[in-house]
Amino acid sequence: MLTPEKISDLVSDAVASIPYPAEPARLYQPIAYTLESGGKRLRPMLAVATCSALGGEVSKVIDAATGIEVYHNFTLLHDDVMDRADLRRGQLTVHKRWDDNTAILSGDAMLTLATMMIAKAPAEVMPEVLDLFNKTAMEIYEGQQMDMDFENRNDVTVKEYMEMIRLKTSVLLGCACRTGAIIAGASQQTAQAFYDYGVNLGLAFQLRDDWLDTYGDPLVFGKQIGGDIINGKKTWLLINAMTELRQELCDILAEDLDDEERVSQVRAVYDRLKLDERCHSLIADYARRAVSALDAVKLDDDARQYFTSLAVKSIDRTH
Amino acid sequence: MLTPEKISDLVSDAVASIPYPAEPARLYQPIAYTLESGGKRLRPMLAVATCSALGGEVSKVIDAATGIEVYHNFTLLHDDVMDRADLRRGQLTVHKRWDDNTAILSGDAMLTLATMMIAKAPAEVMPEVLDLFNKTAMEIYEGQQMDMDFENRNDVTVKEYMEMIRLKTSVLLGCACRTGAIIAGASQQTAQAFYDYGVNLGLAFQLRDDWLDTYGDPLVFGKQIGGDIINGKKTWLLINAMTELRQELCDILAEDLDDEERVSQVRAVYDRLKLDERCHSLIADYARRAVSALDAVKLDDDARQYFTSLAVKSIDRTH
Repeated sequence: MLTPEKISDLVSDAVASIPYPAEPARLYQPIAYTLESGGKRLRPMLAVATCSALGGEVSKVIDAATGIEVYHNFTLLHDDVMDRADLRRGQLTVHKRWDDNTAILSGDAMLTLATMMIAKAPAEVMPEVLDLFNKTAMEIYEGQQMDMDFENRNDVTVKEYMEMIRLKTSVLLGCACRTGAIIAGASQQTAQAFYDYGVNLGLAFQLRDDWLDTYGDPLVFGKQIGGDIINGKKTWLLINAMTELRQELCDILAEDLDDEERVSQVRAVYDRLKLDERCHSLIADYARRAVSALDAVKLDDDARQYFTSLAVKSIDRTH
Repeated sequence: MLTPEKISDLVSDAVASIPYPAEPARLYQPIAYTLESGGKRLRPMLAVATCSALGGEVSKVIDAATGIEVYHNFTLLHDDVMDRADLRRGQLTVHKRWDDNTAILSGDAMLTLATMMIAKAPAEVMPEVLDLFNKTAMEIYEGQQMDMDFENRNDVTVKEYMEMIRLKTSVLLGCACRTGAIIAGASQQTAQAFYDYGVNLGLAFQLRDDWLDTYGDPLVFGKQIGGDIINGKKTWLLINAMTELRQELCDILAEDLDDEERVSQVRAVYDRLKLDERCHSLIADYARRAVSALDAVKLDDDARQYFTSLAVKSIDRTH
């Protein structure tokens, strides 16, 4: 398998060299701005790594991998409009820097651009890769809709929440892995194993996001700790607390408290329920399931090491 | 070729039988609401008619034709958010009936849904059909961006305007025709002839839209006459008047007039410049170009009659 550094470089170069027409500037500049703003590039790296680990030619997967990253950034762009978010990766969101219409239209163009890159997959597997991509996209919209529906509900169950993050976040990681496997010519069984790896890794990542927002180190996390509590966001932590200590939590949320006091009181409820440790242990559980999904797949040691280390990182990453 | 009635029925049935999942309701209901609201179904009819006229099996084109209609309705849905339009086809727009976020997300899902239907084109031509669809979609975003850019400019030229409506409106009619030709297995030359037919037909249709907004019969048109003038929309009529009688027009637009008086004064300027007849004659010119584009294509009489009658209708339609 390619080294982790090589995979990372390949992906960075591919994203940086997407060609944009110059005009109309107002359509293409926000796309470049979004894609140049960084991010972990986790999805395209998963696609390239999977293809490489299975003996595929990475030159064949790079367009589809880049398309998945463009798609991911499109969802962030439109989500930021819907959530009225001002900042993303430390810079103004597109709808703040320009306006809502620019964000809507540039996002639409990114979705088509992503599809164009998916369509560059090798001809013999393109229909399968495209079909997976489109189905995954529909699941992601469903997840985003569920997330928005949760805002107006106080009876969201943990099971519903897990289904929401599976759709909104995790299936795209599964799609990235599976795309790499399909392009490498893997069997359906191997492709499914990598899909399961990606989905479980995605669940671990998203739960760690929830955890970090409450329990992260403010110096390392880079965002205000407690943002989710202040915004009343339905996270794994809040939903569990709502299930187990509803009245107490409702009392706190109804009180007229300043942000710091509210975060501290809600956190005290979390602590009484040991949600810190319980969330951490659930993350570790999903990370383990991710690694186990690859048990039956024949892989070189360095490849297995790569996928294992990503899963381990999801357990204790600090930002 | 199939009869016009049969083509129309096939298209109506196909659009009506798109399957939507029940949940999340807030994601799929607005899509059904939009697609059930009617419209001329001009684009899918062009695709089916072209395929049928060229001896292709219409069962092979129906999914792609429906995908193009879904795409068209997606652009209307997002355009209505961007233009803050309240009504479309006599009913509330999605962002008015629900809200902006619902309109953004449902629109995104419609774009992916459209792509899924395009991907159902027969395997041997699917990559070509998809490529045409994606390139056309990018042109449409460019056209929409140009249209938005025009709002803040007073020096838009007629040439720029024609390029804007070519991109925003006409290329999708060309794409519909070409898709039908490709699926019928036509030569590149025939496919190009039908593309040119569609683009010229689209230009005629859009110019007639501009004309009707000022010169239509209020009883038949179904919309307020003069809406474009009241909103200062850069139409073919306004841009020509701005070029030829700028100062006079600017004086009228700067005056504090009620809507009726403003429409009447701007129309008086149009009349002095004979823009009524000049626009009408330009529409007839594009309709003729549409018909001529098919001169070299071998077609049965009934097929040629069908495409000619659509072009003739574009010249004097009243709504």
